[in-house]
Amino acid sequence: MKKNEFQAAIIVIGNEILSGRTQDTNSNTLANWLNSIGVKLTEVRVIPDDEKIIIKTINILRECNDYVFTTGGIGPTHDDITAKSVAKAFNLKYEIHKQAFKILEAYYNPGEFNEGRQKMVWMPENAELILNPTSGAPGFSVENVFSLPGVPSILKSMLGGLKNKIIGGEPILSKTISLRTVESEIANSLSKVQEKNKDVEIGSYPFFHAGKLGVSIVLRSVDPSRIESCNSQILEFINQKKIEIVDR
Amino acid sequence: MKKNEFQAAIIVIGNEILSGRTQDTNSNTLANWLNSIGVKLTEVRVIPDDEKIIIKTINILRECNDYVFTTGGIGPTHDDITAKSVAKAFNLKYEIHKQAFKILEAYYNPGEFNEGRQKMVWMPENAELILNPTSGAPGFSVENVFSLPGVPSILKSMLGGLKNKIIGGEPILSKTISLRTVESEIANSLSKVQEKNKDVEIGSYPFFHAGKLGVSIVLRSVDPSRIESCNSQILEFINQKKIEIVDR
Repeated sequence: MKKNEFQAAIIVIGNEILSGRTQDTNSNTLANWLNSIGVKLTEVRVIPDDEKIIIKTINILRECNDYVFTTGGIGPTHDDITAKSVAKAFNLKYEIHKQAFKILEAYYNPGEFNEGRQKMVWMPENAELILNPTSGAPGFSVENVFSLPGVPSILKSMLGGLKNKIIGGEPILSKTISLRTVESEIANSLSKVQEKNKDVEIGSYPFFHAGKLGVSIVLRSVDPSRIESCNSQILEFINQKKIEIVDR
Repeated sequence: MKKNEFQAAIIVIGNEILSGRTQDTNSNTLANWLNSIGVKLTEVRVIPDDEKIIIKTINILRECNDYVFTTGGIGPTHDDITAKSVAKAFNLKYEIHKQAFKILEAYYNPGEFNEGRQKMVWMPENAELILNPTSGAPGFSVENVFSLPGVPSILKSMLGGLKNKIIGGEPILSKTISLRTVESEIANSLSKVQEKNKDVEIGSYPFFHAGKLGVSIVLRSVDPSRIESCNSQILEFINQKKIEIVDR
């Protein structure tokens, strides 16, 4: 890890993703958000609702990342085992979180804060809360592990409150050049640009849009001048090859 | 792993997924497909275009799964390093695959099978081809590792040709019961049903549809009679609680 580079991993917890029933979109939401605050996402793992696997995965990823985010498994039903698993991963008690209890007691109408809902205030001891402006029940963090819900709209609403808990580096900037060509036409020239500019991440992605083929070249770096320099080198060979630049 | 249970893992290779630029849908496509042919998906890992990480991840996951699928990184550009990484993971030569060469030579018009495209026929020695009815360039497999492209439409078109290479068990069946309720109302009763029926996977998923809240209960098993039995037990408490059953 470079100085001033912050790394994160995401653990998506849920049988419904692995069965194909649900398309995960939370890791894409988090990926974009992390990128915007200068944290590099190194890995995403989708794992089942299985305590041993959750514990093992948390303990592997928290060692080699500045931040780990879990999504899913913090609701009131029997398959929601993330909080208990985080407690076990850190060898902490799993207990009623007093502040979370107060929040949900105030959130629900009298009599509505039933046993099922009370399960959502059981957390690892001394967990820090991540407030939930959408549906009351907070997420929580222990050291560098941040546990968020699985419902995409609720997860999104909690990112604002999370921002001041995460220290990032410089935002990672990107520039996209979309071309009316195929990858094989530009592969060699692009390879040479990447060789000369190893500090800029250059990706090449074919696309199909309105019945036409094209390629998007994506340049990524924290340094806008490095992106600009690569961009010029790419435009040079594109002009030579008389390839059309298109908007997507 | 139970007798007659087949397990698979997916490795999604691509910086564009980790940067948030691209929403991965391939693992959902593969998850549904694996499910339909009786193979249980145990894990998905999204990793960067980094040779060492690709090699390490392949070698970890191929040891503990019957099948490993990789998606992405088999095109003609410099960031396409999956084939080379698979060769290194298996300590195999990385060389021109004669059959793949013939396929692409015939696929392209004379003169169009250029250096960039020829990169796509470099594979681990003795790799088995996975035919590509959409865009020519084949995927490949080495032992239990199957490498597929990243473009979703191409990947989908290749699953037909893959089916006879994968031995699955009984298809995993599922039944969904959608209710006009919230999870906390049914959490305790559902928990009891799960306790009594440990061989059926019972998931509970809140949803928002047409401005209304609901919960879908999903029952999964290879045995339809076990699903039916759980279904009856759930309907019993639903009737007692006078909860409305809805279509989603």
